[in-house]
Amino acid sequence: MSEVLKSTRVGIVGAAGDYGEELVRRTLIHPHAELTAVTSRQYAGKTIAEIFPKFGQYELARELAFIEPDIDQLAESCDVVFLALPHGVAAEFATPLFERGVPVIDLSADFRLDSDEVYQEFYGSPHPAPELLKEAVYGMPEINREKIATARLIASPGCYPTSILLPILPMLKAGLIKSTGIIADSHSGVSGAGRKAEIGYLFVECNESIRPYGVPKHRHLSEIEQELGKGAGEPVVIQFTPHLAPVNRGILSTLYLAPSRKFKTDEEVKQLDQEIHSCYQRAYYEEPFVRVLEGGALPDTKNVVGTNMLELAWRLDPRTGRLVVMSAEDNLVKGASGQAIQSFNIMFGYPETAGLI
Amino acid sequence: MSEVLKSTRVGIVGAAGDYGEELVRRTLIHPHAELTAVTSRQYAGKTIAEIFPKFGQYELARELAFIEPDIDQLAESCDVVFLALPHGVAAEFATPLFERGVPVIDLSADFRLDSDEVYQEFYGSPHPAPELLKEAVYGMPEINREKIATARLIASPGCYPTSILLPILPMLKAGLIKSTGIIADSHSGVSGAGRKAEIGYLFVECNESIRPYGVPKHRHLSEIEQELGKGAGEPVVIQFTPHLAPVNRGILSTLYLAPSRKFKTDEEVKQLDQEIHSCYQRAYYEEPFVRVLEGGALPDTKNVVGTNMLELAWRLDPRTGRLVVMSAEDNLVKGASGQAIQSFNIMFGYPETAGLI
Amino acid sequence: MSEVLKSTRVGIVGAAGDYGEELVRRTLIHPHAELTAVTSRQYAGKTIAEIFPKFGQYELARELAFIEPDIDQLAESCDVVFLALPHGVAAEFATPLFERGVPVIDLSADFRLDSDEVYQEFYGSPHPAPELLKEAVYGMPEINREKIATARLIASPGCYPTSILLPILPMLKAGLIKSTGIIADSHSGVSGAGRKAEIGYLFVECNESIRPYGVPKHRHLSEIEQELGKGAGEPVVIQFTPHLAPVNRGILSTLYLAPSRKFKTDEEVKQLDQEIHSCYQRAYYEEPFVRVLEGGALPDTKNVVGTNMLELAWRLDPRTGRLVVMSAEDNLVKGASGQAIQSFNIMFGYPETAGLI
Amino acid sequence: MSEVLKSTRVGIVGAAGDYGEELVRRTLIHPHAELTAVTSRQYAGKTIAEIFPKFGQYELARELAFIEPDIDQLAESCDVVFLALPHGVAAEFATPLFERGVPVIDLSADFRLDSDEVYQEFYGSPHPAPELLKEAVYGMPEINREKIATARLIASPGCYPTSILLPILPMLKAGLIKSTGIIADSHSGVSGAGRKAEIGYLFVECNESIRPYGVPKHRHLSEIEQELGKGAGEPVVIQFTPHLAPVNRGILSTLYLAPSRKFKTDEEVKQLDQEIHSCYQRAYYEEPFVRVLEGGALPDTKNVVGTNMLELAWRLDPRTGRLVVMSAEDNLVKGASGQAIQSFNIMFGYPETAGLI
Repeated sequence: MSEVLKSTRVGIVGAAGDYGEELVRRTLIHPHAELTAVTSRQYAGKTIAEIFPKFGQYELARELAFIEPDIDQLAESCDVVFLALPHGVAAEFATPLFERGVPVIDLSADFRLDSDEVYQEFYGSPHPAPELLKEAVYGMPEINREKIATARLIASPGCYPTSILLPILPMLKAGLIKSTGIIADSHSGVSGAGRKAEIGYLFVECNESIRPYGVPKHRHLSEIEQELGKGAGEPVVIQFTPHLAPVNRGILSTLYLAPSRKFKTDEEVKQLDQEIHSCYQRAYYEEPFVRVLEGGALPDTKNVVGTNMLELAWRLDPRTGRLVVMSAEDNLVKGASGQAIQSFNIMFGYPETAGLI
Repeated sequence: MSEVLKSTRVGIVGAAGDYGEELVRRTLIHPHAELTAVTSRQYAGKTIAEIFPKFGQYELARELAFIEPDIDQLAESCDVVFLALPHGVAAEFATPLFERGVPVIDLSADFRLDSDEVYQEFYGSPHPAPELLKEAVYGMPEINREKIATARLIASPGCYPTSILLPILPMLKAGLIKSTGIIADSHSGVSGAGRKAEIGYLFVECNESIRPYGVPKHRHLSEIEQELGKGAGEPVVIQFTPHLAPVNRGILSTLYLAPSRKFKTDEEVKQLDQEIHSCYQRAYYEEPFVRVLEGGALPDTKNVVGTNMLELAWRLDPRTGRLVVMSAEDNLVKGASGQAIQSFNIMFGYPETAGLI
Repeated sequence: MSEVLKSTRVGIVGAAGDYGEELVRRTLIHPHAELTAVTSRQYAGKTIAEIFPKFGQYELARELAFIEPDIDQLAESCDVVFLALPHGVAAEFATPLFERGVPVIDLSADFRLDSDEVYQEFYGSPHPAPELLKEAVYGMPEINREKIATARLIASPGCYPTSILLPILPMLKAGLIKSTGIIADSHSGVSGAGRKAEIGYLFVECNESIRPYGVPKHRHLSEIEQELGKGAGEPVVIQFTPHLAPVNRGILSTLYLAPSRKFKTDEEVKQLDQEIHSCYQRAYYEEPFVRVLEGGALPDTKNVVGTNMLELAWRLDPRTGRLVVMSAEDNLVKGASGQAIQSFNIMFGYPETAGLI
Repeated sequence: MSEVLKSTRVGIVGAAGDYGEELVRRTLIHPHAELTAVTSRQYAGKTIAEIFPKFGQYELARELAFIEPDIDQLAESCDVVFLALPHGVAAEFATPLFERGVPVIDLSADFRLDSDEVYQEFYGSPHPAPELLKEAVYGMPEINREKIATARLIASPGCYPTSILLPILPMLKAGLIKSTGIIADSHSGVSGAGRKAEIGYLFVECNESIRPYGVPKHRHLSEIEQELGKGAGEPVVIQFTPHLAPVNRGILSTLYLAPSRKFKTDEEVKQLDQEIHSCYQRAYYEEPFVRVLEGGALPDTKNVVGTNMLELAWRLDPRTGRLVVMSAEDNLVKGASGQAIQSFNIMFGYPETAGLI
């Protein structure tokens, strides 16, 4: 943006879901965002504070009411629109808004893939707007900051992909690990399932339960492998197992990687460890929302929940020749709405941490 | 045992900890066990029901009081003694009881390893009774049932090892998978940490938290690799990452294995899948406490908590060439006290499910 | 029953809900119950073990399949039928089964009230079978054991009422407390809401939440006040506030009562305390499923969950002149299915603890 | 303060406990607070970010290290000092700091009571600094805003008292309820117990547990009754039962009150309801941190956790003649550190919501 607006008018479509709620929270406290439209078919006519009493302390939340989603109204009242909708549905809004010149930040999977064929393979139906795919920028600031700055359509990354890509990409780009044999084992809180009234997400079904799901071909694989492939400069296929754990928020990913060279002796371990350290420092030292843990600390979801931070740590295992990297993030913040706000800040020239700290 | 006793007098040392409590529960409802001694330094003089009100419905629990641990008293009043003690301490009781001819079922790690050198490497101190190691039988009924029947010293397996060995061993023995490159990613409930008053296990530190620990060389590796090595007929080194999740009980292990042969086409997948199915059927069809899930079901800790059952399922991934096996168990039952009762039943000639169903 | 059957054929209608599941568990382990019919519209054709993998260790659960509810089939194959259905629906089954001479144990509210007018007031619709009300016995063994023994229609008590009536009735009958000014403040686990796919019972809506509901006129009031009135010999009106807390199971009720006489001095306190103690001892000393806590102990739901036990303790407060009684139970066991099994045992002449210990 | 400082240097003694941690969070984001000293005997020498990785995104947290508590150093480097210490210990710091003219905001119970005799009765030891009691102002902004503005020693209210006093005081002052017969039934999250390594607060002891404690004479009664007495203009004695529920944060209080006049007919109910509504509106309409719920909504701790908001709702029950008021707050924020920050803002002339929104 050539000129930085003091305040930007923001619309949120699907504002009553989990992602929408977190977007509302962040824009309410954002010094440069002015929330002008929130849509929800279910709650049209109710104020934000009526549906989310926790926002009742904000005057705007007591005044602004949900509306039925309407392209005209959104285009008129907003300088940018966030889409917090299921995949497939998001494109129905993205296309007309984009055509009218309204920048769109889409939190669904609709514009994350470069190929409509891969979309069809993983999402089971033809892509709803293939012509827009080339316009979309994958909204991960740590790897695409410059493209985000000039984008008009942001495909904000998925929660699992964020927790997996940020730890792996620097290793892969630096050639410190092989691009083969990668395994990602992830555990997510229940908010990742969205606010759907399904038996499987009832309290008594999730409490005191740990369980895998979507094995072995979860949809997020398409996006993870695409971005890893770009980092590696060659196609990458990985193993990914998501699990559900009884916490509201948080994803813990444990990643099994194969360093490019052997390390057996203490000296070799020390040397490789130092190179990994340097690589992460180069990648993330100046990043406000990636924390590389030092000393004996390991990631813990409770340390990042409610924040836009992803934290990571690694351990070399000379017994097996593997590198184990662990990451923790809040699936609704850095894994979704917080990262989308980061893109918004970059697009509109605001400090990247605005609304996020 | 040549002759089956109608009832066997049972002692439990360390009966007030988590493992001890579960042993007490199982012996109270056991048709052939008569609980005659429970020890606890902390609670000596109190009845079982005073310390564990939940057992107040059992008359014996209202009458039997904890005593200070005493070898003479245990040897006189018990036909068998369970040790629910920390490693290192258990051997202090196992040695004199064994010498007096009292059969011992030890739930600690003290007698699980064949080699005192490996013990020293993983537990950080010399083995307290190396001469007894050759007497001990690894108390996993599914692989050692005959040896258990005549043993006088049972080393009951660890919780993580049980959740990892039972799914992997049949595959390894049948040659269906390679013995290299094995990864075990496990998530445990907090009871696995024992009843220790440490900050890290407080409610507010564990609730809403998922975190790895003991990376990359957890003590249980020694026992897992030893038993996998026996199954494979050659040394096995694996990657193992334990995590803590906010449930009281339960371990979910996700295991990444490499089938011995390639499978890419649908036909190859189907063929290998069928062989795996047959292999698990042969191994576990008649086992009362291993459930091989069919159809679309995946393991879930909530389905096994409170029971002595381990459930498992597998998925072949032709994209990566890997076999993913998932298991769920109750870390305090099949992972500890329930499995120990299974050994007790085998040793004394009782139905293997007595007290466990 | 003049003659005790070695085994009784049991049917469960609505066997796939929370109450039904607990009834299934209890009959599977019951030495004198033979489960011959389980109905579920949703799961007809599936075996018990398919729907509830946790019961997979029982052969019967792997063989017996759910059927569509059918009066003829139930009447032929069962000696007694449990109804685990919503109020209003239960009567549709109770009436024809009762008419055919099949004893019915109903866990719904349909037959708990003596008056169809009170039913209409609290449940908002005319009673579906008023002519049967006089046949029904309120199935609380501690107060109605003799009537239960000869009943053909049991109205098994509600979960909240059980947690409130058992602590209060002995005090009221002994004249130790006034029948006015009673307050019951109760907190229940989420399983009390049944297995309904509603937003309000999703994990993320219940976890990290404590909230009141149904204030000030919850339906269970009708049943509580009716039974308290019988105990007092005069109409009783109480204040009752239910809350939802993030546990799977358990009800903790804190009851505020007014002793009939003043107690200010230490001597008066001691004297009254002793009388309360004696009263509870008389009422419950021989009861297998009510535990009166002594010493400093206070009730805790975790001590009763999974059992048919209700535990209670009391404190006199000379500062306020009040008696505070606290109780804990498992809402699905003593508060529902366990208590129903108790009635079953009494009706058919089995030991009252069969299947419950 | 005659002149408002742009920034105020803040010290926190006992900064590594739960209250301290929340104070650190709030001062880190506070536009006018500059954190200059944080003390912790246990962690002296470590930076804030080392002990609380979640604050790692704040530069100051990565730089400022905990120090041993030292009066000289605090007096020199701070314009105000928060004490987040156990009762009894707080006075040891408050006295010398006060004497040196450093304003003190004490979160302990040490200065909340006007009478050292009542302190001795409820806290079991002589008051450590009785001469300072008359200097202290009870730091509840909604009732003492003017006194707070000029105070040099703030006794910040307890968590339970806040949840009870804010709903009751307006009713009492307006004469709408009697001052007798008040009952407060409260359920608190586990963080209320502080970060103490005690068995009773371990995850497995609190998870799946609801339990009362401190019955019938909890220490907070002294403070609650003192402040209610001031509101009523006469001594008040109430019944108070605290419970522990398995959430990290939050207090839900259900209050049973007796309106001063009868209400039976619909008209009388409506009239009284309207008066209560008006009374709460007068009291709290302009308060930023008390939310009076309208319509069918009832308080829920999850709606206030992480915020400085207390929310309340009421219901009249013509059946019993009682008024039931329910409130929810975050015990660590409005119940402790947030309210203390409110006092800080008032004392130093900052917007009352600074650092709290």
